[in-house]
Amino acid sequence: MSTPFRTKRLVEFSDTDMAGIMHFSAFFRYMEAAEHELLRSLGFSVYSELDGQPVSFPRVAASCQFQSPARCEELLDIDVTVRRVGAKSVTYGFAFSHRGRDVATGEMTSVCCRVDHGKPPVSIAIPEEVAAKLRALA
Amino acid sequence: MSTPFRTKRLVEFSDTDMAGIMHFSAFFRYMEAAEHELLRSLGFSVYSELDGQPVSFPRVAASCQFQSPARCEELLDIDVTVRRVGAKSVTYGFAFSHRGRDVATGEMTSVCCRVDHGKPPVSIAIPEEVAAKLRALA
Amino acid sequence: MSTPFRTKRLVEFSDTDMAGIMHFSAFFRYMEAAEHELLRSLGFSVYSELDGQPVSFPRVAASCQFQSPARCEELLDIDVTVRRVGAKSVTYGFAFSHRGRDVATGEMTSVCCRVDHGKPPVSIAIPEEVAAKLRALA
Amino acid sequence: MSTPFRTKRLVEFSDTDMAGIMHFSAFFRYMEAAEHELLRSLGFSVYSELDGQPVSFPRVAASCQFQSPARCEELLDIDVTVRRVGAKSVTYGFAFSHRGRDVATGEMTSVCCRVDHGKPPVSIAIPEEVAAKLRALA
Repeated sequence: MSTPFRTKRLVEFSDTDMAGIMHFSAFFRYMEAAEHELLRSLGFSVYSELDGQPVSFPRVAASCQFQSPARCEELLDIDVTVRRVGAKSVTYGFAFSHRGRDVATGEMTSVCCRVDHGKPPVSIAIPEEVAAKLRALA
Repeated sequence: MSTPFRTKRLVEFSDTDMAGIMHFSAFFRYMEAAEHELLRSLGFSVYSELDGQPVSFPRVAASCQFQSPARCEELLDIDVTVRRVGAKSVTYGFAFSHRGRDVATGEMTSVCCRVDHGKPPVSIAIPEEVAAKLRALA
Repeated sequence: MSTPFRTKRLVEFSDTDMAGIMHFSAFFRYMEAAEHELLRSLGFSVYSELDGQPVSFPRVAASCQFQSPARCEELLDIDVTVRRVGAKSVTYGFAFSHRGRDVATGEMTSVCCRVDHGKPPVSIAIPEEVAAKLRALA
Repeated sequence: MSTPFRTKRLVEFSDTDMAGIMHFSAFFRYMEAAEHELLRSLGFSVYSELDGQPVSFPRVAASCQFQSPARCEELLDIDVTVRRVGAKSVTYGFAFSHRGRDVATGEMTSVCCRVDHGKPPVSIAIPEEVAAKLRALA
């Protein structure tokens, strides 16, 4: 079991709802931002060009379980783990907490795709350099 | 197997991302809006007062699988099914499609809660009148 | 003074914030959606191709004044007026109300641009067919 | 002329749109987050209790002019200035730039309000302690 990639994020007012807590959909944006931060830490941008072609990582699956509310201006701890690196896809796990209190856990599977604007994304093998770094975290 | 609740939603420009498709997090907002529309069709608002107490349905789980991209100005068909009605929670299934093409499927479990501002939500039994109507759809 | 283009929009739970009202930033998304609906009513999509080139209308200015709160599940009336049609830009006015109560007024100026992905947008003359229809509304 | 309050923000993928640039409505969320960060730097939370009553700063006006696009993963510089401190309201100015390139300028006027859930916000005098600190920045 490897050390998770850790990041933090402050819950913003605009991410709360009238129930007084962070809206559940915001967790998915926070997960994506954490995934991208992990990729940047490996020297890889979420929207790169490889051999002159735009490459991105659209999701095929995303899920989240909510244990306790996150509130405005709480600084959340987010742990990201690389759960599985396939030929074309990566599965990440996410754990949100606040000062040791469990807030939410999530999972996302992203597929490496060539993304030509206006055409359907075409899945491709994760570039070996990126895949190797992701596997090292798994 | 009951008839699903059907609604439609136009993909808006502000819900797209730089990959040229609807951002995956928007599907969760669309699911919630469809759930609320179903509740309204039963005569129930998502944020009601019951016996003078604010009641809402925060989520404990949400997931989505993405089959094909949704694009700006596509009018999505959304089918909502009531999968399970427990004492305190409801699980909904969602199927997004565009002109017969599968776009995404999702699931959400919402828990009936008394929501006092600034306090943790407290789960309570779904009011029998609402539960009966939801069970009739299951 | 011409008749404004009228549309309606239900305030969604995910657009509210912990103050219990619709978040101010959501008014800008609602304005854009109303603008796009007006353009569609003229037979024009917000993201079209003209002579094989992608054309869009990025904003150069947007403003909003807020008179009274909008709340979850209120069905807002939105009146859109075309205030000015220039060679390359259009200025729209927006008035939000709920059952006759003034909620907000806004203004947006959009510039017709050729939008090649990854390059700066280049302003171009509004296609005459679109400009003529917009001027007829002004 | 005082020194502006400076902060930074990374443009996230979920804030981009299909034109490949940051969506204009995201600038308003970024402005609000910067305003709140400024308030925190003064020891004041955006959603406080004063004498046991919830106090917040809803906006009465917000505007933004867009000079050049912001793109995914650009780290924007945001300068916040306090333009005017009235008895009940504050007006902030915002300047977004990226490596010296002007991106956008904005303005927001927030009114100090007692915010009882479900009732209209009632404007009140800015607490003198907060007003004094804001005036010192103006």
